[in-house]
Amino acid sequence: MTIAFFGEVMLRLSPPGRELLLQTPKLEVIVGGAEANVATGLACLGHATRMISAVADNPLGGAVIGELRRRGVDTSRVASEEGRLGLYFLTPGAGLRASEVVYDRAHSVFATRPADSWDWEVLLEGATRLHLSGITPALGHNTAEAAIAAAEAASVKGIPISFDGNYRAKLWEAWDSDPRAVLTRLIGHADVLFGNHRDVSLLLGKPFSGDGSDRRREAAEAAFAHFPKLQTIASTARHVDDADSHRVSARVDTRGGAHQTDEILIAGIVDRIGAGDAFAAGVLHGLIESDGDARAAAKSGLALTALKHSLPGDASLFTRADLAAFEGGGLDVRR
Amino acid sequence: MTIAFFGEVMLRLSPPGRELLLQTPKLEVIVGGAEANVATGLACLGHATRMISAVADNPLGGAVIGELRRRGVDTSRVASEEGRLGLYFLTPGAGLRASEVVYDRAHSVFATRPADSWDWEVLLEGATRLHLSGITPALGHNTAEAAIAAAEAASVKGIPISFDGNYRAKLWEAWDSDPRAVLTRLIGHADVLFGNHRDVSLLLGKPFSGDGSDRRREAAEAAFAHFPKLQTIASTARHVDDADSHRVSARVDTRGGAHQTDEILIAGIVDRIGAGDAFAAGVLHGLIESDGDARAAAKSGLALTALKHSLPGDASLFTRADLAAFEGGGLDVRR
Amino acid sequence: MTIAFFGEVMLRLSPPGRELLLQTPKLEVIVGGAEANVATGLACLGHATRMISAVADNPLGGAVIGELRRRGVDTSRVASEEGRLGLYFLTPGAGLRASEVVYDRAHSVFATRPADSWDWEVLLEGATRLHLSGITPALGHNTAEAAIAAAEAASVKGIPISFDGNYRAKLWEAWDSDPRAVLTRLIGHADVLFGNHRDVSLLLGKPFSGDGSDRRREAAEAAFAHFPKLQTIASTARHVDDADSHRVSARVDTRGGAHQTDEILIAGIVDRIGAGDAFAAGVLHGLIESDGDARAAAKSGLALTALKHSLPGDASLFTRADLAAFEGGGLDVRR
Amino acid sequence: MTIAFFGEVMLRLSPPGRELLLQTPKLEVIVGGAEANVATGLACLGHATRMISAVADNPLGGAVIGELRRRGVDTSRVASEEGRLGLYFLTPGAGLRASEVVYDRAHSVFATRPADSWDWEVLLEGATRLHLSGITPALGHNTAEAAIAAAEAASVKGIPISFDGNYRAKLWEAWDSDPRAVLTRLIGHADVLFGNHRDVSLLLGKPFSGDGSDRRREAAEAAFAHFPKLQTIASTARHVDDADSHRVSARVDTRGGAHQTDEILIAGIVDRIGAGDAFAAGVLHGLIESDGDARAAAKSGLALTALKHSLPGDASLFTRADLAAFEGGGLDVRR
Amino acid sequence: MTIAFFGEVMLRLSPPGRELLLQTPKLEVIVGGAEANVATGLACLGHATRMISAVADNPLGGAVIGELRRRGVDTSRVASEEGRLGLYFLTPGAGLRASEVVYDRAHSVFATRPADSWDWEVLLEGATRLHLSGITPALGHNTAEAAIAAAEAASVKGIPISFDGNYRAKLWEAWDSDPRAVLTRLIGHADVLFGNHRDVSLLLGKPFSGDGSDRRREAAEAAFAHFPKLQTIASTARHVDDADSHRVSARVDTRGGAHQTDEILIAGIVDRIGAGDAFAAGVLHGLIESDGDARAAAKSGLALTALKHSLPGDASLFTRADLAAFEGGGLDVRR
Amino acid sequence: MTIAFFGEVMLRLSPPGRELLLQTPKLEVIVGGAEANVATGLACLGHATRMISAVADNPLGGAVIGELRRRGVDTSRVASEEGRLGLYFLTPGAGLRASEVVYDRAHSVFATRPADSWDWEVLLEGATRLHLSGITPALGHNTAEAAIAAAEAASVKGIPISFDGNYRAKLWEAWDSDPRAVLTRLIGHADVLFGNHRDVSLLLGKPFSGDGSDRRREAAEAAFAHFPKLQTIASTARHVDDADSHRVSARVDTRGGAHQTDEILIAGIVDRIGAGDAFAAGVLHGLIESDGDARAAAKSGLALTALKHSLPGDASLFTRADLAAFEGGGLDVRR
Repeated sequence: MTIAFFGEVMLRLSPPGRELLLQTPKLEVIVGGAEANVATGLACLGHATRMISAVADNPLGGAVIGELRRRGVDTSRVASEEGRLGLYFLTPGAGLRASEVVYDRAHSVFATRPADSWDWEVLLEGATRLHLSGITPALGHNTAEAAIAAAEAASVKGIPISFDGNYRAKLWEAWDSDPRAVLTRLIGHADVLFGNHRDVSLLLGKPFSGDGSDRRREAAEAAFAHFPKLQTIASTARHVDDADSHRVSARVDTRGGAHQTDEILIAGIVDRIGAGDAFAAGVLHGLIESDGDARAAAKSGLALTALKHSLPGDASLFTRADLAAFEGGGLDVRR
Repeated sequence: MTIAFFGEVMLRLSPPGRELLLQTPKLEVIVGGAEANVATGLACLGHATRMISAVADNPLGGAVIGELRRRGVDTSRVASEEGRLGLYFLTPGAGLRASEVVYDRAHSVFATRPADSWDWEVLLEGATRLHLSGITPALGHNTAEAAIAAAEAASVKGIPISFDGNYRAKLWEAWDSDPRAVLTRLIGHADVLFGNHRDVSLLLGKPFSGDGSDRRREAAEAAFAHFPKLQTIASTARHVDDADSHRVSARVDTRGGAHQTDEILIAGIVDRIGAGDAFAAGVLHGLIESDGDARAAAKSGLALTALKHSLPGDASLFTRADLAAFEGGGLDVRR
Repeated sequence: MTIAFFGEVMLRLSPPGRELLLQTPKLEVIVGGAEANVATGLACLGHATRMISAVADNPLGGAVIGELRRRGVDTSRVASEEGRLGLYFLTPGAGLRASEVVYDRAHSVFATRPADSWDWEVLLEGATRLHLSGITPALGHNTAEAAIAAAEAASVKGIPISFDGNYRAKLWEAWDSDPRAVLTRLIGHADVLFGNHRDVSLLLGKPFSGDGSDRRREAAEAAFAHFPKLQTIASTARHVDDADSHRVSARVDTRGGAHQTDEILIAGIVDRIGAGDAFAAGVLHGLIESDGDARAAAKSGLALTALKHSLPGDASLFTRADLAAFEGGGLDVRR
Repeated sequence: MTIAFFGEVMLRLSPPGRELLLQTPKLEVIVGGAEANVATGLACLGHATRMISAVADNPLGGAVIGELRRRGVDTSRVASEEGRLGLYFLTPGAGLRASEVVYDRAHSVFATRPADSWDWEVLLEGATRLHLSGITPALGHNTAEAAIAAAEAASVKGIPISFDGNYRAKLWEAWDSDPRAVLTRLIGHADVLFGNHRDVSLLLGKPFSGDGSDRRREAAEAAFAHFPKLQTIASTARHVDDADSHRVSARVDTRGGAHQTDEILIAGIVDRIGAGDAFAAGVLHGLIESDGDARAAAKSGLALTALKHSLPGDASLFTRADLAAFEGGGLDVRR
Repeated sequence: MTIAFFGEVMLRLSPPGRELLLQTPKLEVIVGGAEANVATGLACLGHATRMISAVADNPLGGAVIGELRRRGVDTSRVASEEGRLGLYFLTPGAGLRASEVVYDRAHSVFATRPADSWDWEVLLEGATRLHLSGITPALGHNTAEAAIAAAEAASVKGIPISFDGNYRAKLWEAWDSDPRAVLTRLIGHADVLFGNHRDVSLLLGKPFSGDGSDRRREAAEAAFAHFPKLQTIASTARHVDDADSHRVSARVDTRGGAHQTDEILIAGIVDRIGAGDAFAAGVLHGLIESDGDARAAAKSGLALTALKHSLPGDASLFTRADLAAFEGGGLDVRR
Repeated sequence: MTIAFFGEVMLRLSPPGRELLLQTPKLEVIVGGAEANVATGLACLGHATRMISAVADNPLGGAVIGELRRRGVDTSRVASEEGRLGLYFLTPGAGLRASEVVYDRAHSVFATRPADSWDWEVLLEGATRLHLSGITPALGHNTAEAAIAAAEAASVKGIPISFDGNYRAKLWEAWDSDPRAVLTRLIGHADVLFGNHRDVSLLLGKPFSGDGSDRRREAAEAAFAHFPKLQTIASTARHVDDADSHRVSARVDTRGGAHQTDEILIAGIVDRIGAGDAFAAGVLHGLIESDGDARAAAKSGLALTALKHSLPGDASLFTRADLAAFEGGGLDVRR
């Protein structure tokens, strides 16, 4: 069993501690990218994962490949080509100051690679699932076409597809895009969707006016109606008290019903980036382990996203033992 | 328009993270000083600011000048002379341990410079405001006289003066001082005063017994009565839950009325030093932008002091965009 | 007056910030060990303390001795011998992720030293108290016998003994041990015991079913009944909200009565390791200074453990001035 | 007197110590760019300098401006515009491993700015010299045209121009360029040229076959013949023993003669980047101070480049006092 | 083609910069071990390599596996088991102070694993070469037997064996060992031996009295005579001027002749540890690429060991491009 | 046997790596002071040493005491008093850039303490040697008088005195001093003098015109003639090639003869500060161990100063084992 991920992998550069970007002349480097984060999260939980991507054939690209490999992700389908690697600069927030991201990802090897340069026969060989996110098609014509080609190739081969909405308006607005058309086409192939009522509203072009979980169920049912392949919709609800303290609950809808967790307080946040990707990894893990149970998926999704907030970096690095300890254990020192 | 600031600029040395001073043999260095912090805060908001000071003609003094210049403060009126630069050592607190400051500022170039060595004609040339604080006159005879000379020279030229109380009993007690006389003389020239009812009590020699905002208004009115030039009094009220979590509200009194903000919770404090200076910068910014509106001043004062708590260092480095985001935006990651 | 401590001193290695162990290739090093932490805590409060231990005769052992000496602990009774130094790796927790300890202490010089190689005549010379903990006898036959020999030698000389339960099931389970027998024998010599109702249950082999302080008093009285030398039992109750936020109260039982403090909130925890050792140091300090008063002991125990949470490292480094400031002062910056 | 510099300013990112790039996940950040380095070097020697450039309107561009300002360079003519800032990654060499640069400067705000967006009336206002380098025109059509426009505007205004060859074949080869035509046109306006016989060969399209200083003189005379405005040609000769140890001599040719220094050994090299820019700054300083004397120029050029090798970063930060100490003093500790 | 390596992988802990061990409380961590270093060196040159080892099933062992994987070494045959991971502490030398290693590797999972727990059928499956070193059999009975079993299993399968002498007297002396017997048995299976005349003396029990290359040839011929399978002997000669500056030459003997390189000066040494392992990797690379040519092997062995001295860490991380640049390029900055 | 040292202990603050002071905002902290360095050097060699000094009663003074204690120096005679601790800022040189010291030691607790506040009965109790340096009397009237009082008290008690010239013209010139008179008076009590012919010239007011060792012997004999108590004069000769590479020889003169070592090359210098103090410690060690042999003293003096150059910090931290290894061992890795 091998889960394949298609998406851009980047380097994140951020200042030490809670400094502003370049307040002092040091940067800390993390490998990131929505799909790679999910791949890493699942690899650390013991799943076979494969990254499909392209990086610069220089030490930056080499570092990306090395880091994924270190975490157990198969990188044999990551192309190394002349060009630049996408970067992003993160200034972590604190207290009443929000975190800020400055992207420097345009013109990257991944974004500029022609759609037809991806050979899906080879890339998807032996894959038992393909995971995509809404970021890849938002990067431009090349990647939008490539994402659709990937989804279609997987569909033809009977490989199930999970799709994480990750709607980034700024990226779509930067070119002559039709996000609704592209996303609808992609999600048409998916059996698992990560997204909430706002994502569904955008896709179906209609608002959901209810309250709380009613609204979420209504949206889920509309999505199930619109996308016949879709079996599972997973989402979190997040209340941001300040940059260091959030309250989060998880919800998984299936055609047969839904499971919504209690809201938990996540205080003392170390790094909030990638919390959504950790949720996706946790949900996929729960679905795989439980054979599709909504409750199990919501529970392990919430656990992994909660743990991710405690960890510097974009990706969850937690093991099954960590998940078990989260469920069972107290929070005092473990010896 | 150029706001001039007269005061000592020092280096702050502090241990990494939450260590005690010299627990490990590393120090982090920050440029600080009450007036320089306000100058920096306003420069980062786009105001023309000028520092009037004196530093050691060695790499320490050079670092002070370089840092102010980096932030956009005009340093052409900072003298570089033989002698020592004032230092202070900060051990940042955490939880139930309070932050502690050890001063090593005696005998500095600034403190020992004769009062008549400051040529106010040149130093105040073109200035449209002069900002002073209660620290400068507290350092000794030289600086007390110099502060008075500065205020008088500004008054003669019709340059409005803002004055930040910053009462430091230990400094006044270290020499044969008469703080009330000196401060009264200085505040007599000011149109803006940063201080609360306790500062006014000290100045007028009488207590204000009321409660909360009544007491504050009573004190403000007494100050307005005593100091005919005074138009605006700004202050914060701070409740310290622990070293990492404070609750703060802001208040601005004018002769015509007052505006008091709600109290906000500032948790996850990164660096509380300079929060008062950031408040002063925010209030001055609000007064300038709104042409003297109490509400605008209180609001931007509170915003800048709140943001300052999230930032390592003594001075606010926030821009107008940061202020706008504070008002308008949520606290989740901004991409 | 010299308080002697017998126990293993180790190096703790931990990752920077809130990283996982070896997430990046840096380790920070701290000298630790339950008894050494109490010795250091008391030395920083001005008490004469002496460590009785054995370390490797290499730079690691040298660093241990140097660090104790730096803090004022007499190390003239720490043997330097061929072998290895015990290590432990701490991954500090954050938020909803608990701290984790990986021990690498087996085969250490201390643990493998024959029981009869400790010459208690020399080692206890001039000592006015001996402090032991439940960790030393848990390490194996050698140290169990050595701890008993130490307690017996001290008893013969009329040196009072304090004993900190520190029950570590994993250590006892690693060899053919009889913890109840060993601990009962040791505590039979003690006048001060650090432990709660669970420790007493274990010792006496019976549960205490009451609630809160009733149960604690019941257990204390049972212990006093069982151990005729015992005069004081001190313990904390800790509620762990998350890795960064605990609520703690202290209790000291004497034969005549008990004092229980209010629960205090310890948020923004910097380093929870050694909090129990700091409590022991604070209680011993309070007992010494007050000549055995339960209230004074509970108060200074709670103060020192509260402060310890704010400090990186295993040991309390606080002075009497710090304790006084904790009692008297506010939590805003002290200048 | 104000020396204007036109060129791109970038951030350099490099690993700590002698590590390979991203061997560990830390980067150190330095502001660099050939012309900015010369501007900084001269500003630290007390000359008024002005940067003419364009940077991204984000914290990276802000850091560039702040750093130049910190060093005393006038940044009022640096535009802040939407887009990306040029970066480069340096892996410092060691021993028998050469330093390596990976550029990530394509698509930068500076490189993509239309040539006609630079208003040379405003940008050159009050300038008494314009310094250009061969890097700017090598970046593409926009900057090649802008450099020519700058040179022509300066010529019309009678502002003397210095030009540093800095021939970078890779940059010229990346577009449909005619480096010889462009450089000839630019150097036609210059009175000072930094370059050796190889640069002149390239410009004039003919080899110089002699040996050592004969060849250099022959090339200089050919350049003087070809470029009637040219008065001074400065160059270094460098022998690289290994990455840490070079031998360097300096030479300045004028129409009337030449001065060549002895070769000096520069061992224990800390950072070789920017050594050529420091040489240019030293030569210009020498020319200004001596009113055009070849010997003085060669001497201070050699001194500043020698000192630069001892300093981390791209730019010389040395003062006149440092230059004087280099000439006069020994190399043992100065107290 | 897959080269298998059998040996212990450890963590190396060393102080920052040129400090003594624990002079300040920081350690830098590197993955090391003679065989793993050769595996990593060859993996970075593009060869398929596989590590056969056992590590602790804790974050330390996990870090070892992750690092090998990051560099491209197949770790699917590294067992993760309860126990401790071998450590060593390196204090890097400087000038006239030699580097020092303190081992803490006793009782490791690898050293204590029973010889019969290694299943050579599985471990050597598909391997085309097995590389061993003299360290593994020196660790004790378990590993000596395991090494012999590995060599015998490989021989039976026709897998050629390379053996790096790496004679460590202290390790052999720590148990009732017969190094000559064990090593002779192992080398009897090898076609490639890394070792000089001193190693051969030890094996054959006779001195070689000649001078320089004569003595080396004499020893090589004696070894070829004694070990009929042996085809290639590779060694370096090293002269240590001080801790930072060595002179090294390489030599490869075959039955048909020998190639000896010139001595090169390696100054400014960054990290000398693993230089021998890098030599072995370079020689194996040269042998593979040239189909056994002594000159090619000596040349790439010398190049890789020279480069290794410039790199922090135990293993060569250089690529074919780096090797090519070493041969062809100068040592000034490469852009 | 206890060697007492009287002198100021300071903190040294220096930038990381080879940066200029405050090039980035970090400082590394070292405890220093000529006499304390000798005390530390001898303590690390196993000699009982005692510091007599005064420090600030704040965390800076506490750090000084802690560091001396860590190294085994008895600090029970170091007074802790209100005031400031002397500081100095070191910018380490590199290549052709010399190291620079900026002192900030004026007004320190030590320098301003009245001469009669030192109770030499108590301070010298049990001392078997007193070590002084020329820095203490150069600090001002107070310390000059105190140094003389110390020397006289020691003389009266029959405690031999060693004196290290350490002539610092800038310190003497800062007040109305008569260095020759003071130093002559002090050296009149000494049996061991550290100083060369230039020091003797200064003391005796006459030049020594000879060459090399002749001149040195002539000066030594003049000193022996002038100072009847003097038995040993020790000095080094240092040739500075660049900041990283010096050549040093040692010489010890007695009344009966002299021993001069060969010159050794000390390249790759890590930290040259305190090299003279390490020499003094090595010579005193050699004199003590050999009962006054010039050759032994010169040899161990040269060894300790050579080793010191390899070590960050002001003081030698080397042990007898390190000295033995220096004599006997090679310079390749010691395992």
